[in-house]
Amino acid sequence: MDFLQTAQNAKEASLQLANLSTEIKNSALEAVAKSLEANKQKIFDANAQDLLEAQKMVDSDELSQAVFNRLKLDENKMDAMISGVRDLIKLEDPINKCLLARELDEGLNLYKISCPIGVLGIIFEARPDVITQVYALAIKSSNSVILKGGKEAINTNKAIFEIIADALSSVDGFPENAISQVFSREDVAKMLEMNDYIDLIIPRGGNSLVKFIKDNTKIPVLGHADGICHIFADESAAFKMAQDIIVDAKTQYPSACNAVETLLIHKDFKYTDELFQAVKCAGVKLIDTPERWDFEYSDKILAYKIVENVDEAINHINRYGSGHTDSIITENFDNAEKFMNGVDSAGVYHNASTRFSDGYRYGFGAEVGISTNKTHARGPVGLEGLTIYKYKLYGSGQIVKDYAEGKKKFVHKDLCK
Amino acid sequence: MDFLQTAQNAKEASLQLANLSTEIKNSALEAVAKSLEANKQKIFDANAQDLLEAQKMVDSDELSQAVFNRLKLDENKMDAMISGVRDLIKLEDPINKCLLARELDEGLNLYKISCPIGVLGIIFEARPDVITQVYALAIKSSNSVILKGGKEAINTNKAIFEIIADALSSVDGFPENAISQVFSREDVAKMLEMNDYIDLIIPRGGNSLVKFIKDNTKIPVLGHADGICHIFADESAAFKMAQDIIVDAKTQYPSACNAVETLLIHKDFKYTDELFQAVKCAGVKLIDTPERWDFEYSDKILAYKIVENVDEAINHINRYGSGHTDSIITENFDNAEKFMNGVDSAGVYHNASTRFSDGYRYGFGAEVGISTNKTHARGPVGLEGLTIYKYKLYGSGQIVKDYAEGKKKFVHKDLCK
Repeated sequence: MDFLQTAQNAKEASLQLANLSTEIKNSALEAVAKSLEANKQKIFDANAQDLLEAQKMVDSDELSQAVFNRLKLDENKMDAMISGVRDLIKLEDPINKCLLARELDEGLNLYKISCPIGVLGIIFEARPDVITQVYALAIKSSNSVILKGGKEAINTNKAIFEIIADALSSVDGFPENAISQVFSREDVAKMLEMNDYIDLIIPRGGNSLVKFIKDNTKIPVLGHADGICHIFADESAAFKMAQDIIVDAKTQYPSACNAVETLLIHKDFKYTDELFQAVKCAGVKLIDTPERWDFEYSDKILAYKIVENVDEAINHINRYGSGHTDSIITENFDNAEKFMNGVDSAGVYHNASTRFSDGYRYGFGAEVGISTNKTHARGPVGLEGLTIYKYKLYGSGQIVKDYAEGKKKFVHKDLCK
Repeated sequence: MDFLQTAQNAKEASLQLANLSTEIKNSALEAVAKSLEANKQKIFDANAQDLLEAQKMVDSDELSQAVFNRLKLDENKMDAMISGVRDLIKLEDPINKCLLARELDEGLNLYKISCPIGVLGIIFEARPDVITQVYALAIKSSNSVILKGGKEAINTNKAIFEIIADALSSVDGFPENAISQVFSREDVAKMLEMNDYIDLIIPRGGNSLVKFIKDNTKIPVLGHADGICHIFADESAAFKMAQDIIVDAKTQYPSACNAVETLLIHKDFKYTDELFQAVKCAGVKLIDTPERWDFEYSDKILAYKIVENVDEAINHINRYGSGHTDSIITENFDNAEKFMNGVDSAGVYHNASTRFSDGYRYGFGAEVGISTNKTHARGPVGLEGLTIYKYKLYGSGQIVKDYAEGKKKFVHKDLCK
């Protein structure tokens, strides 16, 4: 099928999805979970094929071991993937929520009602388990999805897609073409041009993928290119807490976007030497005055800088950070507030690891990614970030002329929900 | 000053604006209102200069009388402009609102807090009174503004800008450079390139201006190019109501974006001839099978089509509409619901004129424009559409490792506000 047809079908499906009942959507999610359970072996077999190719690339240094590990589906990941689908059944339907109810005048009532965005174009590198989560999020939020997965996971993705598509086709009332998958680079290029059919692009992958996408489409893009996260150890930071948080934020998953890249230390913090020692013991390489402050190491490497005060820390972060997640460690609550108000990032933390920046940890059930945008959705994006709203106005023959000429007046009375 | 410096200053100001108290912002608005009052004559004089030039252009057919009228400030518009600024003082501060409060675990609390977007790039044709409203909305929502007004209003805009900037500089604690104005086409070109400094572009003007902007920037754009609004007169529509609404929606302000462009009529509606007669008597030219269904006449011209049923009406609107505002006139509530759920537009109305689609009429106090976007903000955009949020996480030393290893568990308990 050509891409235009795929996009048109997705658009048509999106209009039907918008009006699905919560029951049908939850039945669809249960059908997906059941079908994945029943077809685990098919998915493992497909994954084995991908791993075979990937192993060759690891051996010839074309692929990192980290990517290989993310590609590999084991029983644990499979179970988490399936229970992740079921978790969404329990979450409140984000669609058709009344966000505002207002009487404009007698017999003229305005309602702001949440609705799906429409068609999502998802471009993900590797991680087949995350792809399942995205399909599930789209189903629950009534959006169509056109997905392009990473080429390393192509067999796994195909198997998962077929199983999910089959399951959905068995659900009464669930529209055809709600999910589709494309595979080639050319498809991505076409996807980025489809402003008329695709409402939002969500890329998830390396910096260069995201940058490429942002630079090559007029469609809104939700996501982040960089995760340049900072921790500022203030003068009054508790040593043990600073040590634990910094080591966690750098080593618990060094390639995560919410891992810390730069440590800022107050010049009068008393335990700088001990802190450096502890960080080194955790296998982290410290870099003083790096060539670039806006660099994401994605490894056990941590740049550091001694700063005069909390203001210098805030300025450094606003200048070099990527607006992702930044944390202050301090016993001084005023400084904490100053930092959290002054740092212009999606996540501003006090005495906690930057690694908490995650949809699951925030209690969103799941996430499609973390956004550093300043519009629509910021930080970890779950179901709510996949919605927009429409205004429904119920009248009884009202015309604007009467109000413009002063014959009638608006009352603007908020109605209780 | 070069544009880069203007943009950097605006960015710096935006970081300070983000933390202004409601009191300072309201004082600033009052200072602006007072200063406009005290300097009315200066503004009228500047406006007279613009009108002199504009009149020449009207005489030589380079400018329409409609644009001339919009450009002209009289006492009424001036008073409305000033009271519009004061109206914003009364509205709730949209910044620093708690949108979510959740205990993730003991001593680990997450707050989703509304905050400003940052720097707005506003590109408006003509209408100096609306420009004042935009400055006021930006002040109340703590955003910086770089504004490029229409060249026809250049003297009026300069006078208003100087008066407002002067007023703001007299307000204790209000940052410098919160508002700035640029004048040339080259400045617009530069504005569209400033992804690093400008967070949102809001264009307001003709279709070609908005299209040009959308096609030439990577910065998110909020607005609408077209206003192709529809009214569907269903089989059961009450004749008098249909007539009043259609005449209002077409003639009360024909060049408005929320004026109706296409009338769809159910084939079994009994009063089609009478309706046509009434519409013609109101000075409206009816067009059967126009060359294009997606055309905005901005004049007393109305295309029409006889349709089989509500489904055909919905499909026509989703195909040719611009997602702005569409209305059904019917006594059949099921059809009304079907229409309002099925039409994918920012405003879906039952028995009301499309002209109600407006921030003031919705009770938003004011608007920066009407958005047909599917992300961030849709429909009339007031203060809330100029905000985003950040996540503040207050911890007491928590690290992710403890949760990943199962030593600790998230509780995810929503806290009452």
